Amino acid sequence: MELAILGYGVVGSGVARLLEKNSAGIAARAMQPALRLKYILDIRDFPGDPFEALVIHDFDTILNDPDVGIVAETIGGLRPAFEFVLACLRAGKSVVTSNKELVAVKGYELLQAAREHNVNFLFEGSVGGGIPIIRPLSQCLAANEVSRVTGILNGTTNFILTRMIEHAMPFDRALRLAQENGYAEADPSADVDGHDACRKICILAALAFGRHVYPGQVRAQGIRGITLEDAAYADKLGCNIKLLAQARRLPDGRVSALVAPMLVPREGNLLACVSDVYNAILVRGDAVEDVVFYGRGAGQLPTASAVVADIIDCARHIDRRRYQEWDDGAPEYVAPAEDDTAKFYVRLACEDISSARKQVLHAFPGAAFLEIEGASGNELAFVTLPVRDGAAQETLAKLPGTEVKMVMRVAEV
Amino acid sequence: MELAILGYGVVGSGVARLLEKNSAGIAARAMQPALRLKYILDIRDFPGDPFEALVIHDFDTILNDPDVGIVAETIGGLRPAFEFVLACLRAGKSVVTSNKELVAVKGYELLQAAREHNVNFLFEGSVGGGIPIIRPLSQCLAANEVSRVTGILNGTTNFILTRMIEHAMPFDRALRLAQENGYAEADPSADVDGHDACRKICILAALAFGRHVYPGQVRAQGIRGITLEDAAYADKLGCNIKLLAQARRLPDGRVSALVAPMLVPREGNLLACVSDVYNAILVRGDAVEDVVFYGRGAGQLPTASAVVADIIDCARHIDRRRYQEWDDGAPEYVAPAEDDTAKFYVRLACEDISSARKQVLHAFPGAAFLEIEGASGNELAFVTLPVRDGAAQETLAKLPGTEVKMVMRVAEV
Repeated sequence: MELAILGYGVVGSGVARLLEKNSAGIAARAMQPALRLKYILDIRDFPGDPFEALVIHDFDTILNDPDVGIVAETIGGLRPAFEFVLACLRAGKSVVTSNKELVAVKGYELLQAAREHNVNFLFEGSVGGGIPIIRPLSQCLAANEVSRVTGILNGTTNFILTRMIEHAMPFDRALRLAQENGYAEADPSADVDGHDACRKICILAALAFGRHVYPGQVRAQGIRGITLEDAAYADKLGCNIKLLAQARRLPDGRVSALVAPMLVPREGNLLACVSDVYNAILVRGDAVEDVVFYGRGAGQLPTASAVVADIIDCARHIDRRRYQEWDDGAPEYVAPAEDDTAKFYVRLACEDISSARKQVLHAFPGAAFLEIEGASGNELAFVTLPVRDGAAQETLAKLPGTEVKMVMRVAEV
Repeated sequence: MELAILGYGVVGSGVARLLEKNSAGIAARAMQPALRLKYILDIRDFPGDPFEALVIHDFDTILNDPDVGIVAETIGGLRPAFEFVLACLRAGKSVVTSNKELVAVKGYELLQAAREHNVNFLFEGSVGGGIPIIRPLSQCLAANEVSRVTGILNGTTNFILTRMIEHAMPFDRALRLAQENGYAEADPSADVDGHDACRKICILAALAFGRHVYPGQVRAQGIRGITLEDAAYADKLGCNIKLLAQARRLPDGRVSALVAPMLVPREGNLLACVSDVYNAILVRGDAVEDVVFYGRGAGQLPTASAVVADIIDCARHIDRRRYQEWDDGAPEYVAPAEDDTAKFYVRLACEDISSARKQVLHAFPGAAFLEIEGASGNELAFVTLPVRDGAAQETLAKLPGTEVKMVMRVAEV
């Protein structure tokens, strides 16, 4: 069985390394005499690299080589990854990928193409790095009706929040530290603004509930604007702030999905214990109750571990498709986050504290004010009773003499 | 596709219920028009039970019915489960089981029989209840060389230890509470003395390292004899006491395996956070690093969820075997626990504290004494530097004027 890798970046070179390092065990588990890496496609050359001789620049060489049965796509992004993957599937090659954007945006289309051409399209590496989650969700929990999936799906933001909470490090310094450690890109917006987590929860929602959820259908909020005061107020409530991605099945058959920083109660809640660059995904099924999958959500070898597991699975099922698909989405399938009901944590700037308190209690009956030491004299923080998301936003926008600094849900994990 | 259940106890009746409750989704995922439960074998009758009409008493009816392609064994224990399962495999029926004793003792033999007759023998429910662990270990982590597996594999003992640590409840009362809640049997020795966890770590070791490990080859110690003083001393060290089951691959190709209560550092250690009846399994692979699987380790529907997932998998691969097997074990394959090196926590009774301290420091240079409030005047607790297990035991047995009350390893998770 011969393989090709598309894109020799961090993950692609990890896949090449891992295939070589554990070659005997991998071939045995794939039930193949050998899994031979034949080509690596990249626009660059890699002089001196151990796999230098395999590097080619023309995609058609791979496409037209009938000996290449499995292709690993590790380019990332939509173009040209989508065209390449579609062409490979149509040429009867199985494809595995770690590209969450590709799966979140084009997953339905590519799974259909795989079905039509009787090949596999697998993507264990697209969510949670090396954490096994795609296969457990689609196979091990197959006897369950899943009601919700909640995850810490982005390691960069979890690292930043951990620094802020445990080391009282302001956001900007924590972000810089993440960049220095190679956890965040020079342009950190995909991570910090929640887009990366959004793509991943779309994939998990599609698997858990059987229909595609598109990133544009999901309200995604990042962690900018969270201050050390927010962390201190959350601590007062026995909570840690985590960027959660959540998808829930609603009684009417629709799905509610959201990415947002939330206050996560520490008591009896494993997700609140997940620090640094680690990821964790909680799945709730009607039979199994809560199960959690935890590990490094990114990194070269963890992600390569997932990609190579998919390669092994493809090699073992080269004459047969693995079950993993879902229906297409629809505009009305995803309920607006504004319709959710939740408790909200709010921090306001105000001109006159005592007048603001009255306004808050009038607007949010039963709201509880929070006190921390060293709080600014013109800020006010409180937690509401459960209230409709959209109503809370509207009410807050109209509160006289106040300016909303931060609003976060108290998580119902 | 028609099914039979052997044994209509807690798990068996959960399997029947779950097959009915989620029948549409289960059949779709199994790619079958329907999965029909045809027989339930039990020596008892169940008048008034919704599945009463399916109950039969003669195993041969199932064995000789060619329409039954998949059999779920939920009798537990070795006899008659082993004979029944072997007969089914030889008759060309796939078998799924939640019976850890059967897999731990007869797994190699049954997997060989499954191979010879080109059917499947799956056992996701035998370890960790509904937590997906067998399939992730054999498939998702297939690109890794696994170096160790560490688990909290018994919910009953974890419940008891949680009561002791968090509520200062003595062992006997915590055990009684576990029995009242249905977490512990009237005869609790399989749980409390570590045999249950031992069977499970044998199964995980076989999967992770590729050779059968028999329960008789693994030193298993339970949680009897642990006192509230031990919990308090552990707390002083920043540790929780957990009954851990661990299997490690040694550099010489052998395996080291052990079940014992250990002191687990709370800092940076997810296993220390696992309370009550929950289970968690940490797997360390060379590529993926540490991944943790967490959930309810027992209970009717969680375990049934795993059994039904295996039924679905068998139905989808009815004409084809799933890869999951290992070589037979050997006496010299499992290294004696006495050869391990670890730090030890020791609690001694002694006649003369100051003379005992001198003896301890002479026997274990660098040992650190532990102090708690309200300690008994004739007890002494300390932690050693790393020392060979066998040497520690011998030295302790010969320490003049002392009696060893408790010895536990400090876990290297």
